[in-house]
Amino acid sequence: MYNLQAYALGSNGSRIRELFEYGNLRAAQVGRENIYDYSLGNPSIPAPAEVDAAIRDILTEIPSLQIHSYTSAAGDPALRKAIADHLNRRYGTEISPEDLFIGCGAAPELTAVFQALAFPGAEFLAIAPYFPEYKPFVEATGSVFRVVPADIPHFQIDLAALEALLTPNTAAVIVNSPNNPSGTVYSAETLEKLAALLTQKSEQFGHPIYIISDDPYRELVYDGCEAPFLPLIYRNTVVCYSYSKSLSLPGERIGYIYVPKSATDSSAVYAAIAGASRAMGHVCAPSLIQKVVARCVDLLPDLKTYDRNRRTLYEALTAMGYEIAKPQGAFYLFVKAPGGDAVAFSEKAKQKDLLLVPGDDFGCSGYFRLCYCVSHEMIEKSLPVFAALLK
Amino acid sequence: MYNLQAYALGSNGSRIRELFEYGNLRAAQVGRENIYDYSLGNPSIPAPAEVDAAIRDILTEIPSLQIHSYTSAAGDPALRKAIADHLNRRYGTEISPEDLFIGCGAAPELTAVFQALAFPGAEFLAIAPYFPEYKPFVEATGSVFRVVPADIPHFQIDLAALEALLTPNTAAVIVNSPNNPSGTVYSAETLEKLAALLTQKSEQFGHPIYIISDDPYRELVYDGCEAPFLPLIYRNTVVCYSYSKSLSLPGERIGYIYVPKSATDSSAVYAAIAGASRAMGHVCAPSLIQKVVARCVDLLPDLKTYDRNRRTLYEALTAMGYEIAKPQGAFYLFVKAPGGDAVAFSEKAKQKDLLLVPGDDFGCSGYFRLCYCVSHEMIEKSLPVFAALLK
Repeated sequence: MYNLQAYALGSNGSRIRELFEYGNLRAAQVGRENIYDYSLGNPSIPAPAEVDAAIRDILTEIPSLQIHSYTSAAGDPALRKAIADHLNRRYGTEISPEDLFIGCGAAPELTAVFQALAFPGAEFLAIAPYFPEYKPFVEATGSVFRVVPADIPHFQIDLAALEALLTPNTAAVIVNSPNNPSGTVYSAETLEKLAALLTQKSEQFGHPIYIISDDPYRELVYDGCEAPFLPLIYRNTVVCYSYSKSLSLPGERIGYIYVPKSATDSSAVYAAIAGASRAMGHVCAPSLIQKVVARCVDLLPDLKTYDRNRRTLYEALTAMGYEIAKPQGAFYLFVKAPGGDAVAFSEKAKQKDLLLVPGDDFGCSGYFRLCYCVSHEMIEKSLPVFAALLK
Repeated sequence: MYNLQAYALGSNGSRIRELFEYGNLRAAQVGRENIYDYSLGNPSIPAPAEVDAAIRDILTEIPSLQIHSYTSAAGDPALRKAIADHLNRRYGTEISPEDLFIGCGAAPELTAVFQALAFPGAEFLAIAPYFPEYKPFVEATGSVFRVVPADIPHFQIDLAALEALLTPNTAAVIVNSPNNPSGTVYSAETLEKLAALLTQKSEQFGHPIYIISDDPYRELVYDGCEAPFLPLIYRNTVVCYSYSKSLSLPGERIGYIYVPKSATDSSAVYAAIAGASRAMGHVCAPSLIQKVVARCVDLLPDLKTYDRNRRTLYEALTAMGYEIAKPQGAFYLFVKAPGGDAVAFSEKAKQKDLLLVPGDDFGCSGYFRLCYCVSHEMIEKSLPVFAALLK
């Protein structure tokens, strides 16, 4: 007499986590230096030094009781203002603190937004390849989860395939760019075409189709590339942001939801997000870290380390003959599996202690994912293994 | 086209919060020193000094990357071990780290447990007076929320009334002792009778009726009173604990769920809790604070301040003629409203800038709640107002 669906979710971990645990086991057996673990997207550059300095300063400057008190559920007003100001400086927007809801990272923010937009029979679209947790998040709201097939080999958006999946029940399309797992950045052109299509279909169906912009990698871009800020392109965009990657604070659980004033039913959607969060037991984001982020909101990560890893891997693997999606963002490479079967290829790699995640888990078979938030030394040592696997 | 139920929850704040906001407004008008605000259960004693010292030490001793990294969803193994050891020292139990799931405070822990125990048609029982958020938490799982009427004037448990509400669909009974809002502590005798009843009914219905022990006030007891540790009395108890009150860290969002190995379907219930948490976007509890609590797990709060407030208020109000439930725990007094109508009485008090929450919000009319986590000075200044209201 317990919830069988919750049990299934709790007893079946993800393949990614299993691979990571396997890596830890093998590291204990043969030494960490002999394992080439590309499985987990855990930041490998530390938070900017200003973050820990801010923690020390706050402990000195603010009474303890005030540091650790409840904030309002929507977040500390000073933090909401700091984020609004930051976005306005950066994008020329007119965002108010009241448009922002401080959440505990992108995962609970997404679940709250899915719940808030879920009408009876609602359908949510993800674009392959996609972050696998979208599926349980959407299904927990009683809604239908649909997948737009991948746009191979460019990994932009197959708009014809997306259009074919739009129905009067479509509540929202989830957009994640820079993308996990492909590492591609959707171009302004791609997003403008998507916006035009959704505008037309929203009119046809008589209700808005929202875009939910899952945005934790926004700052992680290379080669001078910029990830467009979606609300500037499509007004019915709800942004879910996280400081997990941009400030390297994945364990601290902090981010924000932004509902543009110009979005249809803006204040009702905001209230529904607050209500959905409340029903899931959200009280406030961690209070000390709220104060820290308010002081660090303009900081950007030092991406040189990731960029160096990216170049080394991309250049070496393409020289060997691997085919790789254009990797302009996040910290992932998405590589075509030689032979075409990514599960079999990853299994073969695992025998050589090289840990890769098959794209099947992201709704895109035939490719595997490499997380290059690892040491450069590990990358160099792993290259001969990649070469050997091609033979 | 958004979720109307979530919208309703998000746009209707609680009366408690409204009263608190009203207090802030009045404070701005007439001065904070002229407002007697007993509305909100926000700790007024700071965290033990060791907490902020632990934060400083961790920043010095542990590399930043490691401090702020993801932990496993169930929590940092060192914290789980520290909590298990603490409980075993204190209660003579044999709790393993694997029996504990580190959560983000009691609210999301409760929602995960409700979700995990929710079978189709499940009913959850709360005992009046009760924490009002139980209702939206239970209803968000699609389950039925039922209330056992209050045991007036002792505020223990009316077992006959509870028994009358037990059905084959009863999944669990929520027990909150020390109690919000009554401040009473359920006696061992009360809890043993409850356990005997639930054991008998579980056999009759052929499935366990769990107790969900909402335990944030366990350490806040006075007069040498002890709040019994429910798993020692009833094996099918799932504990939801929070450090919000015991370490005065309400904003930091950390606690744990304990599923005893001896509970029926123990490992399945644990997995269902993990799965329910995952579907709500739980990734891990805030990582720095996890490390802090691991170092502070044996600390108890300095209760002298609360106890002094409690005595002053209790003695003065009873001397005036107010009738009050025996206040042995938490930081609440539950007072019989003169005239019998707590809403009218609270409204009258509000005209004199004395802010009290009517018990109607807690499923118990005719009483009002006082949160005495306030300054002693405010209490003393408010006493003449209480006296005037009796006339």
